[in-house]
Amino acid sequence: MASDEVEAQTAATEDCNLRRRQKSEKDGAEQEAEDPSVERTFEGQRVPPWREQLTARALIVSFILSVMFSVIVMKLNLTTGIIPSLNVAAGLLGFFFVKLWTKALEHTGLLRTPFTRQENTVIQTCVVAAYGLAFSGGFGSYLFGMSAKIAAQATEQNDAQNIKDPSLGWMIGFMFVVSFLGLFSVVALRKIMIIDYKLIYPSGTATAYLINGFHTSQGEKLAKRQVWMLGKCFIGSFLWGFFQWFYTAGDDCGFTAFPSLGLKAYENRFYFDFSATYVGVGMICPYLVNVSVLLGGILSWGIMWPLIDRQKGHWYPADLPHSSFHGLNGYKVFIGIAMILGDGLYNFLKVLCRTLSTFIVAARKGSSSSSSNTLPAAVASYDDEKRAEVFLKDQIPLWVAYVGYVVIAAVSIVALPHIFPPLKWHFILVAYVFAPVLAFCNAYGCGLTDWSLASTYGKLAIFVVGAWAGSAHGGVLAGLAACGVMMSIVSTASDLMQDFKTGYLTLASPRSMFVSQVIGTSMGCVIGPCVFWLFLKAFEDIGTSESQYPAPYAIIYRNMAILGVDGFGSLPKHCLTLCYVFFALAIIVNLMRDVSGEKISRYIPIPMAMAIPFYIGSYFAVDMFIGSAILFVWERVGSKAEADRFAPAVASGLICGDGIWSLPQAVLALAQVKPPICMKFLSRKMNDKVDNFISSLS
Amino acid sequence: MASDEVEAQTAATEDCNLRRRQKSEKDGAEQEAEDPSVERTFEGQRVPPWREQLTARALIVSFILSVMFSVIVMKLNLTTGIIPSLNVAAGLLGFFFVKLWTKALEHTGLLRTPFTRQENTVIQTCVVAAYGLAFSGGFGSYLFGMSAKIAAQATEQNDAQNIKDPSLGWMIGFMFVVSFLGLFSVVALRKIMIIDYKLIYPSGTATAYLINGFHTSQGEKLAKRQVWMLGKCFIGSFLWGFFQWFYTAGDDCGFTAFPSLGLKAYENRFYFDFSATYVGVGMICPYLVNVSVLLGGILSWGIMWPLIDRQKGHWYPADLPHSSFHGLNGYKVFIGIAMILGDGLYNFLKVLCRTLSTFIVAARKGSSSSSSNTLPAAVASYDDEKRAEVFLKDQIPLWVAYVGYVVIAAVSIVALPHIFPPLKWHFILVAYVFAPVLAFCNAYGCGLTDWSLASTYGKLAIFVVGAWAGSAHGGVLAGLAACGVMMSIVSTASDLMQDFKTGYLTLASPRSMFVSQVIGTSMGCVIGPCVFWLFLKAFEDIGTSESQYPAPYAIIYRNMAILGVDGFGSLPKHCLTLCYVFFALAIIVNLMRDVSGEKISRYIPIPMAMAIPFYIGSYFAVDMFIGSAILFVWERVGSKAEADRFAPAVASGLICGDGIWSLPQAVLALAQVKPPICMKFLSRKMNDKVDNFISSLS
Repeated sequence: MASDEVEAQTAATEDCNLRRRQKSEKDGAEQEAEDPSVERTFEGQRVPPWREQLTARALIVSFILSVMFSVIVMKLNLTTGIIPSLNVAAGLLGFFFVKLWTKALEHTGLLRTPFTRQENTVIQTCVVAAYGLAFSGGFGSYLFGMSAKIAAQATEQNDAQNIKDPSLGWMIGFMFVVSFLGLFSVVALRKIMIIDYKLIYPSGTATAYLINGFHTSQGEKLAKRQVWMLGKCFIGSFLWGFFQWFYTAGDDCGFTAFPSLGLKAYENRFYFDFSATYVGVGMICPYLVNVSVLLGGILSWGIMWPLIDRQKGHWYPADLPHSSFHGLNGYKVFIGIAMILGDGLYNFLKVLCRTLSTFIVAARKGSSSSSSNTLPAAVASYDDEKRAEVFLKDQIPLWVAYVGYVVIAAVSIVALPHIFPPLKWHFILVAYVFAPVLAFCNAYGCGLTDWSLASTYGKLAIFVVGAWAGSAHGGVLAGLAACGVMMSIVSTASDLMQDFKTGYLTLASPRSMFVSQVIGTSMGCVIGPCVFWLFLKAFEDIGTSESQYPAPYAIIYRNMAILGVDGFGSLPKHCLTLCYVFFALAIIVNLMRDVSGEKISRYIPIPMAMAIPFYIGSYFAVDMFIGSAILFVWERVGSKAEADRFAPAVASGLICGDGIWSLPQAVLALAQVKPPICMKFLSRKMNDKVDNFISSLS
Repeated sequence: MASDEVEAQTAATEDCNLRRRQKSEKDGAEQEAEDPSVERTFEGQRVPPWREQLTARALIVSFILSVMFSVIVMKLNLTTGIIPSLNVAAGLLGFFFVKLWTKALEHTGLLRTPFTRQENTVIQTCVVAAYGLAFSGGFGSYLFGMSAKIAAQATEQNDAQNIKDPSLGWMIGFMFVVSFLGLFSVVALRKIMIIDYKLIYPSGTATAYLINGFHTSQGEKLAKRQVWMLGKCFIGSFLWGFFQWFYTAGDDCGFTAFPSLGLKAYENRFYFDFSATYVGVGMICPYLVNVSVLLGGILSWGIMWPLIDRQKGHWYPADLPHSSFHGLNGYKVFIGIAMILGDGLYNFLKVLCRTLSTFIVAARKGSSSSSSNTLPAAVASYDDEKRAEVFLKDQIPLWVAYVGYVVIAAVSIVALPHIFPPLKWHFILVAYVFAPVLAFCNAYGCGLTDWSLASTYGKLAIFVVGAWAGSAHGGVLAGLAACGVMMSIVSTASDLMQDFKTGYLTLASPRSMFVSQVIGTSMGCVIGPCVFWLFLKAFEDIGTSESQYPAPYAIIYRNMAILGVDGFGSLPKHCLTLCYVFFALAIIVNLMRDVSGEKISRYIPIPMAMAIPFYIGSYFAVDMFIGSAILFVWERVGSKAEADRFAPAVASGLICGDGIWSLPQAVLALAQVKPPICMKFLSRKMNDKVDNFISSLS
């Protein structure tokens, strides 16, 4: 057993990216049909030196966007853990803000440096580095899983040595100590991945096409219309969030408790919760992901849980508290974990095989030609030459990378055991010896498939370190902390390599990119914990399964760690059997998806996506389904081309607006400003009783 | 004192019609610019003889539409009494159904007679005659005002002799006895009004343009798209009504109790009640009407009632029941009545003056030229000749009209005192002597201004007959019954003359029109009472001011009758003074509207529209305002032309869908099927108490 929201995110993101990749390849093809060279269209424009790419305005905009996206990602972390790709939104909004800035200065005549695509890439890189940490920091998974709140729900291994309650101080320290290693481990590999192996990095390539598009004149026009659309949806979604707030005085109040499919369905967590965020997510993610999630919800909450519930008293004691993992809740969590692990294992092996085989082929070719190019030199186009020239000009000295890595690793080895006593220094040392290899694997695999397996490596760490430390010596906490160390390095490595690809395609200087990443990572190390802290203080019931912020992966991660340390002893009856069945099922379904042709596999659901609603219910699946339905109608009734162009903007607007509303909402909660009205839903019988009660009061 | 929902309807309808008139004149002008003669485009088409215009399919479609529109009008009667013009919807749907029918038959090869515009006019006429009775039958005003339920609220004159509870038997009888007189009184005047005086009848003309448009090929295309739009909105609105139903288990439950502007505003009846009907009404009625209604709501519920409420204990006893008319409710109703009466009186005098002066001028001209044409003969175009030829071909013998009138009047004089004992036979006889004159006045005025003053004549009858019968002899019941007699005749006369104008312009035979009107009226005499009966049985709390169906005019009419019989004795303190002020205000504002130029008068509110929310609150004003806002945005952001073409279809769809939902809703209520969920809105404090109560239950 191991972790997994990461995987879930990857499942969604991966498919989203796949679609985007196809699109960007198409766009690229179209572009090339019109004009064989992208760089020729920019030929007249000077490439600014790297210092000029790092402007003050870029950093200010980056900071604003980093806060914004961190809040959004944090919200997603704490609700379902499904995080769609926000790169498009970051690119659009970065363009929008700086354009606004430069336009304003142009009017006053104070504009000195024009807005270049390199500057845009720098912003993009910085924002991605910063909000990436809001995810890889594990605020919705391993880090929150250490807290007493989550431990109390797990009913086991919740002694003091396995608990570390979140506090601003150690979280920021932890982030600083672990987050920069990925950055340094990647620098050395940059040239090999991008120039020598010419890896695709689909997301990075797509972002680069977007940025290049914005900075051509006709692209700028489309970008403006997209920004306008995004802005409208942003405002609408924000106001909707605000409006909903007024009706949430008390538990089970407001639109999030609206039994839109009936009370019976509501009890089984089937309802539309009016969340603009997940409607937007549904619009970005492909139909298959949405359908898989819905299917998973129907399978679990519609069929399995009601059936298991009937065995109450037989399979597990009937008098257990509702939240106990020895009862129904145990089935929900552990069957979900089994399915996630099955899918994760399958994909890990698949990507590993592909990575190794491609790597071996490439290495053989590399040894035969000293120029080490996978493509014959004759194919090197004007674009390639120009890009390689810029990419190789501003080098980052290798000794900086090596020294940086060793210094930070040393600091980390000394500091971490002080934060987490069960995590001994030799665990960390071993992790840091293997980490660069795993980081390389992940960056390489991601370049091929766009699928980051960070969470799988994290799970590996949970099990290895947890078992090594042992149940008696705080193995649960040690495992969770090791997961954090591993995930940070591996996740950062693949994210930043994507950014380097974007930089390569937009002629941004690698040096300005590196500095931007360092700055972005530093911002993320402070912003991430602060935003998490804000949520934690503002919303008291965070982390409980029926609240607004169930943070499902926190309990799942902790249970994985417990399982790793303890074994399967305490599971309720037949639960283990069911886990095996679903573990196998996940692998079989994945095999079927790969073996069958694309025509059939389009209709086979993704096990990873199916597992998400197992624990938290399918309300968000209904949201996503509605998002899908909107997109479907838009594509059929409206124009397909228009939907392709504007749906990502609409979805980003919905997600960002609702996400940003969390900020004032949290501030209101902290200021003890409570909403005035409760919109309550009662059955007719209960309503009659309540009406009698109310009239007896007056 | 006197009646008035009629006026309210007229206020809204009048303005709607004014707008339509301008449009139809413009359309007409455009059409004439393209083609000087409408009839030439139809030249190839045979005008079918009158028997062929009256097809079985037309009557079946008429019956379906009559039921549908009667339900809608009844719902509007019982909610606010604001009834927008549904003629466009009737025209569109009539066209749609018969077209569907003929298309289907065409495919099977069974179609014998093609669908002609004459047939369309016959349907239109029949439906208007039928659903007109749902309004002029007074189910929301004088007739319902006779019931014990309303009498109980009035606290005075509620003895047995002033009460007549609705029952299916006498209502249908009453309708048959009074509704045909208008028809016969108009027949004789037909030629004078249409051919000799060439009156405009704006609504009738607009409908004719619509029907003529449908039956040209390009018009048919547009009509189809409009029908499609109407259909979509119809289904959406119907489903929305259905969805809302599930959340209405109990009082103050569901979307109609949604405090969308806060609890404080909700207590003062300011909220959006999610009624698709009134959003649609807001889209049809001009901005000025909507703004006037909203202003009236703010003036009354926002300012005056809270101020008067503070005088509780000073101006009126503090311990009165909430619904008593000796307390705050008295101010609400009587100030509203004063304003309605002031506006009514002003407009009555205005229309009377214009009617008389135009009539005198026309009569003088008529005596100088024996052909009695207001226009010189030279202007008589091809269209005019063709139309006059058809219109004069199928005459209805005058003796039929006279004999019909006398026979029905005789039956009526014998029958009515049996239904309403206080209404003596000599009252009725006098009424029937004067009625044709008043019917002529109203038909003539309506031809000029499109403004039917039926309710004003009704109020006149309330006061004259009420005072004549006297307080001791059931004057209230006699007054209300006399109001019904007078209103039926006068209202039918103007409605049917509008139809004759439509028939004239579409070459429909007057004889088929007459038969269609007789059939329509007969259907209305049965459908109207049945639909009312259904509502009455299905919704128990009908007629109480805070229910879903407050039927505000029922209590207003009854209070007028009481005031007419009794005098002002029982009004609370300062109420009479305020009534005088608002009566004067209504006249002054109307004067200002007429004296100032059109530029300024566009911004002066209509007192009649302002008075409507005085009693029932401004929730429907918020709905209408939202309808306005949608139209406004559509016109500005979208295309003005598109909005002009499709807004009436959208609005009709919203109104019809929600209205038709009332039918299954009523059936469900009769079958004792109750909605399962209550969506309740509680203040935070109350919610805490209720939560404690609920947790104490389990």
